[in-house]
Amino acid sequence: MIGFGAATAVEPAGEGRYGAVLDAGYLIGDALNGGYLMAVLGRAAVAASPHAHPVSTAVNFHRVAVPGPAEVIVEPRKEGRTAATARVTLVQDGRPAADALITTATLDTTAEPAWSGAEPTGLPPLEECTAARPPSGSSGFADQVDMRFDPATMGWLDGRPSGRPEVRAWFRLRDGHPPDAYVLALAVDALPPVVLNLGARGWAPTVELTWHMRAVPAPGRLALHGSGRVLTGGWFDEDVEVWDSTGRLVAQSRQLARAPRAPRAAERL
Amino acid sequence: MIGFGAATAVEPAGEGRYGAVLDAGYLIGDALNGGYLMAVLGRAAVAASPHAHPVSTAVNFHRVAVPGPAEVIVEPRKEGRTAATARVTLVQDGRPAADALITTATLDTTAEPAWSGAEPTGLPPLEECTAARPPSGSSGFADQVDMRFDPATMGWLDGRPSGRPEVRAWFRLRDGHPPDAYVLALAVDALPPVVLNLGARGWAPTVELTWHMRAVPAPGRLALHGSGRVLTGGWFDEDVEVWDSTGRLVAQSRQLARAPRAPRAAERL
Repeated sequence: MIGFGAATAVEPAGEGRYGAVLDAGYLIGDALNGGYLMAVLGRAAVAASPHAHPVSTAVNFHRVAVPGPAEVIVEPRKEGRTAATARVTLVQDGRPAADALITTATLDTTAEPAWSGAEPTGLPPLEECTAARPPSGSSGFADQVDMRFDPATMGWLDGRPSGRPEVRAWFRLRDGHPPDAYVLALAVDALPPVVLNLGARGWAPTVELTWHMRAVPAPGRLALHGSGRVLTGGWFDEDVEVWDSTGRLVAQSRQLARAPRAPRAAERL
Repeated sequence: MIGFGAATAVEPAGEGRYGAVLDAGYLIGDALNGGYLMAVLGRAAVAASPHAHPVSTAVNFHRVAVPGPAEVIVEPRKEGRTAATARVTLVQDGRPAADALITTATLDTTAEPAWSGAEPTGLPPLEECTAARPPSGSSGFADQVDMRFDPATMGWLDGRPSGRPEVRAWFRLRDGHPPDAYVLALAVDALPPVVLNLGARGWAPTVELTWHMRAVPAPGRLALHGSGRVLTGGWFDEDVEVWDSTGRLVAQSRQLARAPRAPRAAERL
């Protein structure tokens, strides 16, 4: 096993192109995790930018990406004093697997919030959380991340969904890699879909995910709070807030996704 | 004055290109409103798609767009059974003014939410709201939209910001155009920046804005609820939820923006 840094590394190949070798350690089932892919896209965007951090990333996932060679194409679109923007595409087997718009900037690591909303409540202390792994097919990803779930939000695992689209967990990498911009990319897409707590089961493909890096995270575990507002016509939204060990909001994401259908009896056969 | 439909119309020009004539009615100061530009981008994306609605739109604004001719370039990237995605760019004077990722799909107009969170509280009945227009420079846009603001969130106009990053308002078009996907694009970027209630003043440039269309809106006024989570290092986030006259969440947006600095005494001279 290689560390998270090596697994997300990109090598410049000239003219805005970067090579990557996508790592099987971040598979969930047959597909590489979207957060892992966003980390790779973010590294390429920062490598092509004068700035240090991927402060805003919007992604469309087109196709499943698989372990092995891939290419990231970075097209710079605007370079300002404060921020730079680029269109960034992950290409595998000659086809776009994901398109992103990434804004890079250099966050002030000493900035204190001028205003901050309250940390969401509900994530119990670590010792009251459960290390229960997500269901079968998730073992690759679960080997890399140490997640401890709020048991109140994991009843769906035992067929007792809570009825509220919420999932909460503590998060860190097993390899000891400290939280940074790219770990945040992984964290915002690490929770099981919140609609599992509404009785949905199975794969919930992300249609669009946007995440913003709000601060450079302090060392330690991250607290993830996932929630949704509406499930309608098979579409749901999922917000994830990521708080660092000092209680600071370090990342926020929203994705629009397709809900798996709740199984009917005939489909369970 | 022409109506909203004509002001956002696009004409196919072949090979994924669409012509538009951007309308001075949507100026805020010297810049066309970002929501108006998103409406134009959305019309081109839907024109190029087999689907009826722009369900997800992520935009980077690179340069101020001005009234007059512009071109929208649509690059289809993936066409699936349920949804299609495209990269969409607004070009003016030969340069990209905005880049977008737009997912189109056809929402089921009869779908009832399987789950919905509560409508945010705080927007008073219409008769208790104020038609007070935003400060100088906004008259173009304010001529098109009829907005009635919650007075509790407009103290910043008189130098008494509330101290909470919130703005709430009723919204409709003055020309009688009923709410639709493109009116929603306008609505999600229509509120004054929520950080004005934290003492900031002036222009707050949007770095990235993503909005999702969640339902086809019913006729009538829309209720807009804007709020933010963190202002730090000059960066702030703003969420806008849009609810229709039947109390249904029809759109949700988040933008990352740069906060104008609170003026110091010397800057007020």
